[in-house]
Amino acid sequence: MEYFLSLLTAAAAPPPPSPAPASTAPHNSTQMAFPVFTRIRLAQPTDVPQIHKLIHQMAIFERLTHLFTATEASLSSVLFKSPPFQSVTIFILEVSSQPFIIEEEEDLINNSPPLYQPKFQTANLDHPIAEDPEIETFKSLNSGDNVVIGGFALFFPNYSPFLGKPGFYVENLFVRERYRRNGLGKMLLIAVVKKAVEMGCGRVEWVVLDWNVNAIKFYEEMGAQIQHDYRFCRLTGDAFQAYASTN
Amino acid sequence: MEYFLSLLTAAAAPPPPSPAPASTAPHNSTQMAFPVFTRIRLAQPTDVPQIHKLIHQMAIFERLTHLFTATEASLSSVLFKSPPFQSVTIFILEVSSQPFIIEEEEDLINNSPPLYQPKFQTANLDHPIAEDPEIETFKSLNSGDNVVIGGFALFFPNYSPFLGKPGFYVENLFVRERYRRNGLGKMLLIAVVKKAVEMGCGRVEWVVLDWNVNAIKFYEEMGAQIQHDYRFCRLTGDAFQAYASTN
Repeated sequence: MEYFLSLLTAAAAPPPPSPAPASTAPHNSTQMAFPVFTRIRLAQPTDVPQIHKLIHQMAIFERLTHLFTATEASLSSVLFKSPPFQSVTIFILEVSSQPFIIEEEEDLINNSPPLYQPKFQTANLDHPIAEDPEIETFKSLNSGDNVVIGGFALFFPNYSPFLGKPGFYVENLFVRERYRRNGLGKMLLIAVVKKAVEMGCGRVEWVVLDWNVNAIKFYEEMGAQIQHDYRFCRLTGDAFQAYASTN
Repeated sequence: MEYFLSLLTAAAAPPPPSPAPASTAPHNSTQMAFPVFTRIRLAQPTDVPQIHKLIHQMAIFERLTHLFTATEASLSSVLFKSPPFQSVTIFILEVSSQPFIIEEEEDLINNSPPLYQPKFQTANLDHPIAEDPEIETFKSLNSGDNVVIGGFALFFPNYSPFLGKPGFYVENLFVRERYRRNGLGKMLLIAVVKKAVEMGCGRVEWVVLDWNVNAIKFYEEMGAQIQHDYRFCRLTGDAFQAYASTN
């Protein structure tokens, strides 16, 4: 089970229940929408507390908190040790009710192209950001006020010997509950795929649950092939640790 | 389909047909066996021509030569760019009719522990090495005479955010046809698992084909969990390249 659930839930969850109409808005046949600004950027070390909380939310959602042993320290010990895209890499999705101020000072100081040029898009939410009950918890420390972290994608390089090319494996694609069903998961996945193409990779891979027909349909529409005859094998826990003492 | 086939074929193929008895050996009820010495070591850049041939053999075996576009140059451009175990890593399995001479000169010169201490074991083959029809092609350039490359494992790091720990993903586990059904695939897989445990990883993962019940049984006996409800998704080829032009 684990976090793969979140990948498909975030990207292609079932249609939302009809929202309660806002009291000041007129009733009509189209769903209420609140336009917001979004930015996808590389995670920074200062994002670790919120990344840890996001991963914990995945564990709650997937009823796997008994498997959740990551700490902020264990995340920090692995993340940001290599340049992005060469090892574990995280894209943070931010949402804001105000346009982002594009900050280029750091790039100008270094006089080099940034490791990842953030992607800016607008989206329509079905609730205003101000109604986010976790707005304080997920306020982005790396951005201005009114910027909230809505989700993230965690991925790392893999390799296709047949193609002789690297690729990306998307381990997590998570959008916080309040922000789901607004296309934000798709934005994150496309950002990963576009970066892979730009880097000369040969493919992007991930895992989905077989019963999530909405997600499978969405991935197929994105052009992915579902490998129905593959089975994922995992050696972990005590059975894994026992190999310490084998010859 | 692709190279995942080879992983299970190598590791847990069906029982071999009864071998024709060697003319000079007595007939008895046990299978004829030829004891040999094996070594598992890190691949070196000089192994690339043979690695390329092994990957091509996988493509032939899996009837996927139309997807095989790797060249020696494309392999070299990715392999050996990072220290082993931090990126794509290959274990080479060598077989020899004579004991290996343990070479420590290089380690002594560098006055540092080796990146990987080769693993030596003995095995019983059902044919003598001398009968290997490709003995010249797969002669190990990195070892003494009479040493033949029998197979390889290709793997790279992955990451479990729940565990907050890295792991390994085994992309290929391939044993040349002549050497299958002798436990060599299992030696390679165990070597990968042991190294992962030593490095403090949390798990090792790979993929198997659902119809290969022998392989699934073998992996379960090794302690692996088969995630029957996961489906592997792959975005590659033209559908993948098309994302170059999306916003």
